[in-house]
Amino acid sequence: MFESAELGHRIAKDEYEAEVPGLREALLDAQLDLWESKKFSLVILIAGVDGAGKGETVNLLNAWMDPRHIETNAMGAPTQEEMERPDLWRFWRALPPRGKTGIFFGSWYTDPIVRRAYGQSGDADMDRAAQEIVRFEEMLADEGAILLKFWFHLSKDFQRKRLRKLESDPKTRWRVTKTDWKHFKIYDTFVPVSERMLRQTSTGHAPWTIVEGGEPRYRSLTVGKTILAALQHGLQRPPNVTVVDPATQPPPPVHVDKLQVLNSLDLSQTLDRKTYRTELEKYQAKLNLLIRQPEFKQRSVVAVFEGFDAAGKGGAIRRLTSALDARQYRVIPIASPSDEERAQPYQWRFWRHIPRRGNVAIFDRSWYGRVLVERVERLAREGDWMRAYGEINDFEEQLVRHRIIVAKFWLTISKDEQLRRFEEREQRGYKHYKITPEDWRNRERWDDYQSAVTDMVDYTSTEIAPWTLVESNDKQYARIKVIKTLCDRIEDELSKMRK
Amino acid sequence: MFESAELGHRIAKDEYEAEVPGLREALLDAQLDLWESKKFSLVILIAGVDGAGKGETVNLLNAWMDPRHIETNAMGAPTQEEMERPDLWRFWRALPPRGKTGIFFGSWYTDPIVRRAYGQSGDADMDRAAQEIVRFEEMLADEGAILLKFWFHLSKDFQRKRLRKLESDPKTRWRVTKTDWKHFKIYDTFVPVSERMLRQTSTGHAPWTIVEGGEPRYRSLTVGKTILAALQHGLQRPPNVTVVDPATQPPPPVHVDKLQVLNSLDLSQTLDRKTYRTELEKYQAKLNLLIRQPEFKQRSVVAVFEGFDAAGKGGAIRRLTSALDARQYRVIPIASPSDEERAQPYQWRFWRHIPRRGNVAIFDRSWYGRVLVERVERLAREGDWMRAYGEINDFEEQLVRHRIIVAKFWLTISKDEQLRRFEEREQRGYKHYKITPEDWRNRERWDDYQSAVTDMVDYTSTEIAPWTLVESNDKQYARIKVIKTLCDRIEDELSKMRK
Repeated sequence: MFESAELGHRIAKDEYEAEVPGLREALLDAQLDLWESKKFSLVILIAGVDGAGKGETVNLLNAWMDPRHIETNAMGAPTQEEMERPDLWRFWRALPPRGKTGIFFGSWYTDPIVRRAYGQSGDADMDRAAQEIVRFEEMLADEGAILLKFWFHLSKDFQRKRLRKLESDPKTRWRVTKTDWKHFKIYDTFVPVSERMLRQTSTGHAPWTIVEGGEPRYRSLTVGKTILAALQHGLQRPPNVTVVDPATQPPPPVHVDKLQVLNSLDLSQTLDRKTYRTELEKYQAKLNLLIRQPEFKQRSVVAVFEGFDAAGKGGAIRRLTSALDARQYRVIPIASPSDEERAQPYQWRFWRHIPRRGNVAIFDRSWYGRVLVERVERLAREGDWMRAYGEINDFEEQLVRHRIIVAKFWLTISKDEQLRRFEEREQRGYKHYKITPEDWRNRERWDDYQSAVTDMVDYTSTEIAPWTLVESNDKQYARIKVIKTLCDRIEDELSKMRK
Repeated sequence: MFESAELGHRIAKDEYEAEVPGLREALLDAQLDLWESKKFSLVILIAGVDGAGKGETVNLLNAWMDPRHIETNAMGAPTQEEMERPDLWRFWRALPPRGKTGIFFGSWYTDPIVRRAYGQSGDADMDRAAQEIVRFEEMLADEGAILLKFWFHLSKDFQRKRLRKLESDPKTRWRVTKTDWKHFKIYDTFVPVSERMLRQTSTGHAPWTIVEGGEPRYRSLTVGKTILAALQHGLQRPPNVTVVDPATQPPPPVHVDKLQVLNSLDLSQTLDRKTYRTELEKYQAKLNLLIRQPEFKQRSVVAVFEGFDAAGKGGAIRRLTSALDARQYRVIPIASPSDEERAQPYQWRFWRHIPRRGNVAIFDRSWYGRVLVERVERLAREGDWMRAYGEINDFEEQLVRHRIIVAKFWLTISKDEQLRRFEEREQRGYKHYKITPEDWRNRERWDDYQSAVTDMVDYTSTEIAPWTLVESNDKQYARIKVIKTLCDRIEDELSKMRK
């Protein structure tokens, strides 16, 4: 893969000087068009061997382009805060919104390649990382981002000469670190490892561009022109283009009978007030105790609440939080996305709330919105919500691999009970604010929700992150089921750690 | 994932009888429309737990639909011939052409799941298999196939009852094998393993449909209606739809100078006649010997020849074949695809020629056609040839993992030398047939080919399957370089086996 990046590419000075002004102007124009149209975000990864001009290129891009619309992220070793989240969290944080360009100097490729090159992981680990990256990048592309991945290459000889030259000049000596020489020594390992990674991650939606890094003018023109081509290409897109044509995707699941997970629940289950009080006290104490176990410092909880309107999500959540220390938990109510969230890939608004180790995040509605309300209300296109199931599983797999306990609750009530609660709320003043015309409209789509929930459970209730369906006609019964299930999950996970 | 497939779905007899005639008629209609329009191929996978009605469903589909347009493939244990090819080979062989439906009873999922459930492989192995399957199915979808993957599920209790009932009836007893009971015993292992696989392979382009298998009428209606929905959905596609809109893909690589892999070669290299004769004799003998080594019985060779017209591919190939036993090699000339090949995914025409162990397949032109002539002549759309690089790497990775030695030669000549050879051929009668107007036209696209070859080498010259660029202005030099490189590769691979 590196053959043509070892040919000794050079651009003559006069040719370069003739080309650059036009290129810069075109880049600025395209950047402004992108900013105004907000058609996509441009994600640029800068990777490759040391001494091949990665840093210079980042500086050059910031000089050539309008830095107001560029966000440069130098991703070094993760901070403590970052290490307490799944690996991709810090990259999600740094993704550029639509209309902007994000440059990643160091990326999600760095760690898997470096670990493999230093023998801290095997081929199988790196291959798994590669496949995860492929899915992540495919999701970004499907969400409308354009990815440009630059790999800066130098032949071994060239790299040696360059490091020596930098060292011999007092003005540049500081740029050569011990790590550079350490990396150089494992060049013969590093290059095949990188090649293996590049081979597996060069896809149609995010191909690698390999750039010979030895000669600055060639390198700069290649990067500049590649970025320009990508910007102009993307700007020609029709607005709101669907990346994957739904006509080419299979249709959604067919349901041939009315027996679905929700209407097969026994909603008549109740709990008397006395038992409720005793049980609630018992499990709140237990939950509090579990969270204070020393093992929990290495873990965290993501609890998801979904359910029909007026099913009692808020009440169930309050019964959890009153057992917790306010410094340890956060409730994240998911409403319509903010402008900032709308300019990002769908999952972005959830990634930002992933808790640190030892913490609990409670999502009042969640990333399931896409396959529930957005599906039923036709706010998301079929192709988008159909691919969301797989993306959600990928997302939750990352959480679980980071040893986050993912507990998902669907609170269900009967249509009659919902009506009763709606009417009650309308009558009782202080709850009045809770009923909106939207609630009444959602009610009309009751059957559509039944199908959507069935499909959601079929696709996303997994061994690692199962759904708990909560019969909620009786609020007391529901609250105890929720807190007991959560306690059991946490207890189970912590006891596995003691084995 | 199996929650809603354990609810005890049933369809009443009268409801079923009312529904079936209309469904069958609609299925036959849709099938005929598909056959006439040839818009796509429908690939149906039948998988799941034993005793859940997989076989009955296959029979039912053949009864309900027009069996002339259905190909049913019961994929049991691989035959000897199949085991001598990469795992996916037998499935490629059985893919339905556009216009038809292929039912796979047993599929590319069977082996990874069964091996994992029996502890013959670990999670990492199965996950790798899952990711390979995701890429394979994505490629099928991109090539226009529609995939329906049915997973038939039974709860453990239900499965026990069903096996007992089948056994108790003399008419059905034969259907319960020891393997069924053996699988039943590991139900608790099998189900989580399957769930892990399903979770990782349920994608937007090929989602799983989980079917509760206990009650035949429910099962049959679900499968029938799902197939009908997919057929009707696919038939609404505009003709020649591009699955991936090229507007959403990054543009092809930019080349900022004229220095490319081909024009950096030293084409003046020659070999005198005497050295040529000696070397040829030496390497032909060596090649012959290598192929007859006992270790080679476990290996095979896929040699790929690409190059400019008149670069001497045929001559170089003949120098190889004259060293080989005719029973051990095949030369596969790749011309325009046949009708049969055109009705299949692009790679199908190459998969069919993958050699058995101990054999040599020489491809005179190859799967690189898509990124060479089809790209340059604009026979393939940009999105299609851009994704081809990754697909080719996936393909060659499968060959290499099956211990096939993949050697790829690009024969290059100068533009002047090509002209000389063209003119010579036109003058000398017996070679005249070799010059076509197409050859002259290709010549006009010389620069486009330079870029296409550079990109091809950049993307597909990998550690596991490197390209050898052969300077071919001097035919003698070229032939020796080819045979020597091939000998070295084989020798190297065989010596690794002795270590």
